[in-house]
Amino acid sequence: MTFSFDAAALANRATSALRAYDPGHDLPALRRRFGAVIAELGSNENPLGPSPRARAAAASALDEVWRYPDPLGASLKRALSAAEGVPVSGITLGNGSHELLMLLAQCFADAEHPVVHSQFGFAVFPIAAAAAGAPSLAVPALPADHPEAPYGHDLDALASAVTANTRLVYLANPNNPTGTWFGDAALETFLGKMPADTIVVVDEAYHEYVDASGLSTAVRFLDRFPNLVVTRTFSKAYALAGLRIGYMLSHPSVAAVCERLRESFNVNGVALAAAEAALGDRDYLARVRETNRVDRAWLADALSARGFRVLPSQTNFLLLDLGRDAAAFEAHLFERGVIVRPMVGYRLPHTVRVSVGSRAELDRLLEHLP
Amino acid sequence: MTFSFDAAALANRATSALRAYDPGHDLPALRRRFGAVIAELGSNENPLGPSPRARAAAASALDEVWRYPDPLGASLKRALSAAEGVPVSGITLGNGSHELLMLLAQCFADAEHPVVHSQFGFAVFPIAAAAAGAPSLAVPALPADHPEAPYGHDLDALASAVTANTRLVYLANPNNPTGTWFGDAALETFLGKMPADTIVVVDEAYHEYVDASGLSTAVRFLDRFPNLVVTRTFSKAYALAGLRIGYMLSHPSVAAVCERLRESFNVNGVALAAAEAALGDRDYLARVRETNRVDRAWLADALSARGFRVLPSQTNFLLLDLGRDAAAFEAHLFERGVIVRPMVGYRLPHTVRVSVGSRAELDRLLEHLP
Repeated sequence: MTFSFDAAALANRATSALRAYDPGHDLPALRRRFGAVIAELGSNENPLGPSPRARAAAASALDEVWRYPDPLGASLKRALSAAEGVPVSGITLGNGSHELLMLLAQCFADAEHPVVHSQFGFAVFPIAAAAAGAPSLAVPALPADHPEAPYGHDLDALASAVTANTRLVYLANPNNPTGTWFGDAALETFLGKMPADTIVVVDEAYHEYVDASGLSTAVRFLDRFPNLVVTRTFSKAYALAGLRIGYMLSHPSVAAVCERLRESFNVNGVALAAAEAALGDRDYLARVRETNRVDRAWLADALSARGFRVLPSQTNFLLLDLGRDAAAFEAHLFERGVIVRPMVGYRLPHTVRVSVGSRAELDRLLEHLP
Repeated sequence: MTFSFDAAALANRATSALRAYDPGHDLPALRRRFGAVIAELGSNENPLGPSPRARAAAASALDEVWRYPDPLGASLKRALSAAEGVPVSGITLGNGSHELLMLLAQCFADAEHPVVHSQFGFAVFPIAAAAAGAPSLAVPALPADHPEAPYGHDLDALASAVTANTRLVYLANPNNPTGTWFGDAALETFLGKMPADTIVVVDEAYHEYVDASGLSTAVRFLDRFPNLVVTRTFSKAYALAGLRIGYMLSHPSVAAVCERLRESFNVNGVALAAAEAALGDRDYLARVRETNRVDRAWLADALSARGFRVLPSQTNFLLLDLGRDAAAFEAHLFERGVIVRPMVGYRLPHTVRVSVGSRAELDRLLEHLP
């Protein structure tokens, strides 16, 4: 170098307030170290993999990989429109729902229009706000001993925290990392309290795994609340995490604003093809749901029987509340090739999140529990 | 709807200044209409397709598509580091270079720190600035009758336009849509004039197609100019446009700042695998280069012989200067299944851009020229 240089000094204000993502363990390196015996229970992936129809559609799409993808994603949007009863003009596709959550803040939030979310809500929410240079308010969660939703969203407190100036509220239902949820009736009440200029985003990344009574989807309220936005992903139940694709359902004018900032080819062509085929395979999705439902209950029982406190979950993971710092617990499992996710980043250092992996992975977890 | 709602009124200032991308023709619909006889010469894709090794690696990666991709992209970065002589800490991967160009502005530009680029420079440059809420200055291009680089970057004028407050300069070399370029010596002189706090981005999307004497790559100057950033893509010569992957070479501190805003899983796993395999197949790349070199010259000669003014190009496309509005020319070809790209959006309404497609496509173009 001919002169001293530190680009950090040149970053703008919003970027200066951010820290880089902590990728956690180097999983490719761990796979080389542990080989087939590794149990990857840290990322809430679907161990059944995608529908064979999705796999075949992805393979076919490789024939045209030298072409740019359809910047409209028109074919997938038509399929989503038919499946969800939302017009194509109210659908936005993203490079994972992560990109859509970021895009919403970048379009609507700013220094004068803060973002509200729940303490222990999905980690991307405050990052999206910070990246947009917007303040964010983390509203205290429900208490640890709440009977239905420990550490969950306190919708009454969230509604009280919203002012006319609040531009975005991010909710996750069910929530990651807690696994907790709130029902349709509670959401309806919450939406009824929102100012007309406050956009309420409900991230339903785990929607397909839900089987609780009283909880369907926020999509049913889109017609009545034009300030409501629902995000979904193909990374979880559809098992396409590696391809990066999510979608957003909203009032058409919200979609139109997001189109201004959306990068024209943000979703790759293999993901578009695979997602459309996955969406069409309802039988496979039903099998995924049923397998997860059975294995989640089985795992929760097995862990409870061993004396662990297991939080209620409507997702494909369980949060364990150890009641003491979880670092030693996690390290013990890690040395035996069992990867679980400590929640220090969420300021829940006494908990770990465990994915409902394959039975072989879960057996390995149970075998090696400290 | 229970009340009138227009999200456009809620967009923040930067977003309010943006317009959505115009996707142009609906290519999937055109493929259905014209079938195999369509000649797609509008998107500068590589008609040879990717290396068979890249194709095979992509197919293999589909086996793990239910896993999240490596958020570090470590394996591809090691390969790029070896190929380009840049440390891994100076490499950033993007969902296409488009994302990286946007990310740079979002990290470094703001209302007080404007962006400078060339008139007729790549269209993403002013969009990146606007999305970051930063002013951008389009510096007048070289004149239409310039012997070497008509409509090209005027580096002297660009240097004069830069002030101590300029945070980013975007250059494209060779440039899209003009096809023009500037040599290493001119770039070196330009870099020597830059303030230490001004980051100079050289987009080399078409780098692999270059064979002009005096032009290699800006990468050779990275060691001497820490404020230099080079972006590249796998969408053009590597023929992976459908997978979305690009990369950025820079001082490690620039990469570290971009990591703060980069979405953790921004590059999909199939793209990571395919790009690494493509990078390793030097023989295939040499064939792509040679085919393009021969066909580009052949097409330029054929068009010149028919009386068209063809601009010099170091890319896989040619810009034709018709000397009159190009709308009728484009419409004539379009009705015959030949897609070329009008440059109205660049305020070059008297030009069209034509990709160096397959020989069959180029024959069809020549057959149907008005």
